[in-house]
Amino acid sequence: MKKIEVCYSPALYPYYRNDEAIVVVSDILRATTAICAAFENGVKRIIPVAGLEEARAWKKKGFLVAAERDGIILDFADFGNSPFNFSPERVKGATIVYSTTNGTQAIEMAAQARGVAIGAFVNLSALAEWLIAEDSDVLVLCAGWKNRYNLEDSVFAGALASALTGSGHYNTSCDSTVAAIELWEIARKDLLGYMEKAAHRHRLKKLGLDDVMPYCNTIDSTRVIPLLKDRFLVEHRDYFSKNHKII
Amino acid sequence: MKKIEVCYSPALYPYYRNDEAIVVVSDILRATTAICAAFENGVKRIIPVAGLEEARAWKKKGFLVAAERDGIILDFADFGNSPFNFSPERVKGATIVYSTTNGTQAIEMAAQARGVAIGAFVNLSALAEWLIAEDSDVLVLCAGWKNRYNLEDSVFAGALASALTGSGHYNTSCDSTVAAIELWEIARKDLLGYMEKAAHRHRLKKLGLDDVMPYCNTIDSTRVIPLLKDRFLVEHRDYFSKNHKII
Repeated sequence: MKKIEVCYSPALYPYYRNDEAIVVVSDILRATTAICAAFENGVKRIIPVAGLEEARAWKKKGFLVAAERDGIILDFADFGNSPFNFSPERVKGATIVYSTTNGTQAIEMAAQARGVAIGAFVNLSALAEWLIAEDSDVLVLCAGWKNRYNLEDSVFAGALASALTGSGHYNTSCDSTVAAIELWEIARKDLLGYMEKAAHRHRLKKLGLDDVMPYCNTIDSTRVIPLLKDRFLVEHRDYFSKNHKII
Repeated sequence: MKKIEVCYSPALYPYYRNDEAIVVVSDILRATTAICAAFENGVKRIIPVAGLEEARAWKKKGFLVAAERDGIILDFADFGNSPFNFSPERVKGATIVYSTTNGTQAIEMAAQARGVAIGAFVNLSALAEWLIAEDSDVLVLCAGWKNRYNLEDSVFAGALASALTGSGHYNTSCDSTVAAIELWEIARKDLLGYMEKAAHRHRLKKLGLDDVMPYCNTIDSTRVIPLLKDRFLVEHRDYFSKNHKII
């Protein structure tokens, strides 16, 4: 029996850190959803960078760069972090450098763990099946919003925890996991509708960037599982899965 | 309209800090419940101290000292942090120095805020009525468990947030407050039964210290509202309330 835990904020990571675990980074609106979309559409690899200066330096070297802060694409960048930015014609075969407000810092923070995977509603079942097969402890690291708790990442954490504990291979004695599962049980009845309660949904609306809401709250639109290997995110695609839904 | 927010861990306090707010510190199992019990039973004042060396120094000066770590009373202390320790015959008229694993650090951390109040299920309605009358922003600071999220403090935060937003005087756009209210709505149907899910409930059970569970999960057994004034916790008792239940 392996354990699943949930960390609600990068600022809490030291208190949940488990280097024997696979860390699943979740930034539903929008970084980890967009990373899944990019691999689904054929990107070759993504280089996550936490800092903007580093992103700018990669741009000067000629790389494609996706970079946003507070939802807004930066002037030197080729992309923001809407999943719709990463269309096949723009990303197929490309290497992209990626820096976002919350998500890429969380990826960098977890780099010492046994594994780092990118999680979102769009790859939920594929990810859950792969994790169960890996037979490793799992820690969901919610990117949150500037180190504050957020609803969308927590609901996703609850969905994944529910799938893993439901498989019979995982248990938990972690209160944040218990609470996340409770939240998922409420939200799953109408996921997109439930997200009206999320503060970041309203930030995106004010910026005119909320066209992504249905996409980001669609479960299982892809089988890709982006994984951190050395400094790069690369694709693991579960081609051989029976493709049955876990959720 | 004032705002209510919930901070799930002392480690997240910098990201929620609002010095215009009254900070309600919550450590349901057991520090803030015990502090309410002590004032209900006639303690004159409580000196919260974060560090053990400081607690030991007060003891040498001849003060009564309550001190525990990981649930266990320390050898030099007169009391642990069970609410049952603070019986009228032991505490009436006394000044007590108090240091616990999580709760007293949270109190110290919030000392710069407009006000600091001690919250627990036992004083829920009195506290909610007083806060509404104060007409101030409210930040619930959950003491958690060694900086991790815990269930019992979050459920309490949800109960208080539900009372304040239900009054029409408060609103929130804080995701952790939304989630805490969801949790309270589930737990309120059988609060004591729900707490079987809490990790700390099982830590206390292993230590044979879980006799406090019914007391700590009883709503509105007292009208006292312990408040931090200078370095001391003193009692505000809402003698003039109509004493109607908010919850």
